[in-house]
Amino acid sequence: MPVQPRTPQGVLELLPPQQLAFQRMLDTIRRGFERFGFLPVETPVFELTDVLLTKSGGETEKQVYFVQSTGAMDQGHKPEMALRFDLTVPLARYVAQHEHQLNFPFRRYQIQRVYRGERAQKGRFREFYQCDIDVVGKDTLPLAYDAELPALIHGVFSELAFGPFTIYINNRRLLKGLLESLGIEKQTEVLHEVDRLGKIEKDEVIKKVEAFTPNAAKLIDLLSQPFEALKSFDGNDTFKQGLAELTQVYETTLALGVPTSALEVKLSIVRGLDYYTGTVYETFLTEHPKLGSICSGGRYDNLAEHYTKSKLPGVGISIGATRLFSQLLEMGIVGGAEKPADRATAQALVLHVEKPMALEYSRIAAELRAAGLNVEVYGGDDKLGKQFKYADRAGVPLAILYGSRERDAGHVKIKDMRVGDASMPNKEIEVPRGELVARVKQLLG
Amino acid sequence: MPVQPRTPQGVLELLPPQQLAFQRMLDTIRRGFERFGFLPVETPVFELTDVLLTKSGGETEKQVYFVQSTGAMDQGHKPEMALRFDLTVPLARYVAQHEHQLNFPFRRYQIQRVYRGERAQKGRFREFYQCDIDVVGKDTLPLAYDAELPALIHGVFSELAFGPFTIYINNRRLLKGLLESLGIEKQTEVLHEVDRLGKIEKDEVIKKVEAFTPNAAKLIDLLSQPFEALKSFDGNDTFKQGLAELTQVYETTLALGVPTSALEVKLSIVRGLDYYTGTVYETFLTEHPKLGSICSGGRYDNLAEHYTKSKLPGVGISIGATRLFSQLLEMGIVGGAEKPADRATAQALVLHVEKPMALEYSRIAAELRAAGLNVEVYGGDDKLGKQFKYADRAGVPLAILYGSRERDAGHVKIKDMRVGDASMPNKEIEVPRGELVARVKQLLG
Repeated sequence: MPVQPRTPQGVLELLPPQQLAFQRMLDTIRRGFERFGFLPVETPVFELTDVLLTKSGGETEKQVYFVQSTGAMDQGHKPEMALRFDLTVPLARYVAQHEHQLNFPFRRYQIQRVYRGERAQKGRFREFYQCDIDVVGKDTLPLAYDAELPALIHGVFSELAFGPFTIYINNRRLLKGLLESLGIEKQTEVLHEVDRLGKIEKDEVIKKVEAFTPNAAKLIDLLSQPFEALKSFDGNDTFKQGLAELTQVYETTLALGVPTSALEVKLSIVRGLDYYTGTVYETFLTEHPKLGSICSGGRYDNLAEHYTKSKLPGVGISIGATRLFSQLLEMGIVGGAEKPADRATAQALVLHVEKPMALEYSRIAAELRAAGLNVEVYGGDDKLGKQFKYADRAGVPLAILYGSRERDAGHVKIKDMRVGDASMPNKEIEVPRGELVARVKQLLG
Repeated sequence: MPVQPRTPQGVLELLPPQQLAFQRMLDTIRRGFERFGFLPVETPVFELTDVLLTKSGGETEKQVYFVQSTGAMDQGHKPEMALRFDLTVPLARYVAQHEHQLNFPFRRYQIQRVYRGERAQKGRFREFYQCDIDVVGKDTLPLAYDAELPALIHGVFSELAFGPFTIYINNRRLLKGLLESLGIEKQTEVLHEVDRLGKIEKDEVIKKVEAFTPNAAKLIDLLSQPFEALKSFDGNDTFKQGLAELTQVYETTLALGVPTSALEVKLSIVRGLDYYTGTVYETFLTEHPKLGSICSGGRYDNLAEHYTKSKLPGVGISIGATRLFSQLLEMGIVGGAEKPADRATAQALVLHVEKPMALEYSRIAAELRAAGLNVEVYGGDDKLGKQFKYADRAGVPLAILYGSRERDAGHVKIKDMRVGDASMPNKEIEVPRGELVARVKQLLG
């Protein structure tokens, strides 16, 4: 009996048309990263266990996948390696390990899969792509870099064309100073509630915060008003520094070409409770707020304290590409492949019309490929009906037909397989053999 | 004490300039695959153990990396998953699993890393990229597809420009028929020796083969002569079929545009002893024969017998990209990054000349990026000398300088950072502010 072919739970394996759409999405993200001069880094899928798990215990470790070869397992060794669960720990290890060979500020992008032993449930992936960028400074990192990231994200999501979106920015230092100025001590607890502003009713948030401070209403009112109004609040120096930072990041981002319609200061954004120390980012699709933030990040004080004594402050942002793609796929926003050209890499298919002409089909394909076109040759001598069915299912825009009749007349036929478009009905044209390449290019636009 | 930052043994982790070169190589390979209309597939890094290891025991299983989450490990379970060790088994599982949703002949490419618990030694990788293409038929697959693969490989390696190369082809059916016609029974043993022709002395091969047949000299003589001469050998039907196949594949490959200088029939190529049944391929760099075959593959009868009762014959070829790149890197053929543009993604760096002008630098960058150029902005107000040092190390071709003096004159300065090229000395030009984009594009060629 054959083994049942199946994948493990919690992975996203795509059929070719969707894989092609996903690949194009990753390409767009990569092009956007390189537009801002970021450099590619790839790290091994596994890290040594003691390097990966510098903080022992905790939630993270419970989700780690350990790796061991057959030999090691037989001997009862503890696993020496584990799969990366994010791209931040590998970045810290990479920068610390190669510190003296890198150019600081170090701008890297990394597009790879990460692994988490999540409980199996819809929308939770055990293997998923992350697309990370970080700028890492040595000792210091100027604030100007905090503005580059939202500008880059604006470029990427504009090109991805998933619809209108807003990048929200805030500053953790401003929040810290504001809470201090209001005499609030339990910052972690209070910020945890602040983070829910906009998700639950304002009054409910105030009620929760009242458990920690008599200034709850005042705080939540301050954070609910427009950014401009907050500028008149008389806070401590930390608040003032955060305010100045946020103002500069906002203005620099606009100077980098981001329209005010896509950038907003949102004072309730917290983004995790201890890692980020300055600027923080979230991104929402205007028409699909329920997706949550599709691209988040922020500024941190020290990247790699577990691996080096060097101080490495940085700012980074991340797109969870697998989760985003699978949601957009479900909503029909990507991968629908309505246009044939969206689900094929080939732009033309040379059909097998007559067996004695077979070498001619190879020559025609070679000619079109030499002109930079993506071309398939149908390899079998099946009936034309079957060949057209293949072309149709494959989604190839053009079929090329060349039989002895066409050869004798010095012609070649091109059949346009794109249907359902009134401006371009499914049609067949006959062109001089010598004009084939030019006419195919013309038809493809 | 910090943990020593380090990678596991047997992985190739690159610095950014080399990673960029490697990424460009993978891009070229992918473009070459799509030029022939192949479709992308990605599979999860891990497979269920019972799916991956359908043949129990053997060398392969000893090299497998098993994967288990913390929870499963604590309970003493046997590992449920393992990392893929090639892309062929995942392809077989994929095609069997999604059979009814695929279009046959199914043409897929897959560029992903695979994992083998090799003994640690120079040149052996535990994690490495494979770039595979396969055409998989349902029930049958016409021979025409066997010619597409060497044509595609010719396109890829021409564009990669690693120097002259030869694609060698042979046919296992021809070998089988030839051995049968000479009354040789121990085919596996004899072919194992035949495979060494060209690597060791011909006489030595004959001597080895004499242990199995009195026709050793005759066989080796036949296999050492040019293909044309073999055509007069009076073999059995299997031989004749193999000869006809090889002739057709050779001629079709030429019709697909491969020059005779890059394609050769080599009768001693065997390529593994049981998997391949028809056409087989190897590829050698003419000037670096010691690298061995850099791209190999062949025709097989049935891809997925462990997962489905459908008969799925196919033909495939594979490039071991990590091994190839690391060897070329060592020889200085790739990754040398002599030209600055080869080690940066950024084409221009906007320097920070005067602090009050900071927003102008963002605007200039936005302008250049909108024109499709890759641009960095230097974020700090460091001395210009330090900024130039950064630009030089980064390998950015152009630096843009814009101070209040230039602003008042309506100018902007462009410094060409590419040195060592007599036709393009390190120089600084001043251009009207309004012509910046056009002049930058012109300088970049």
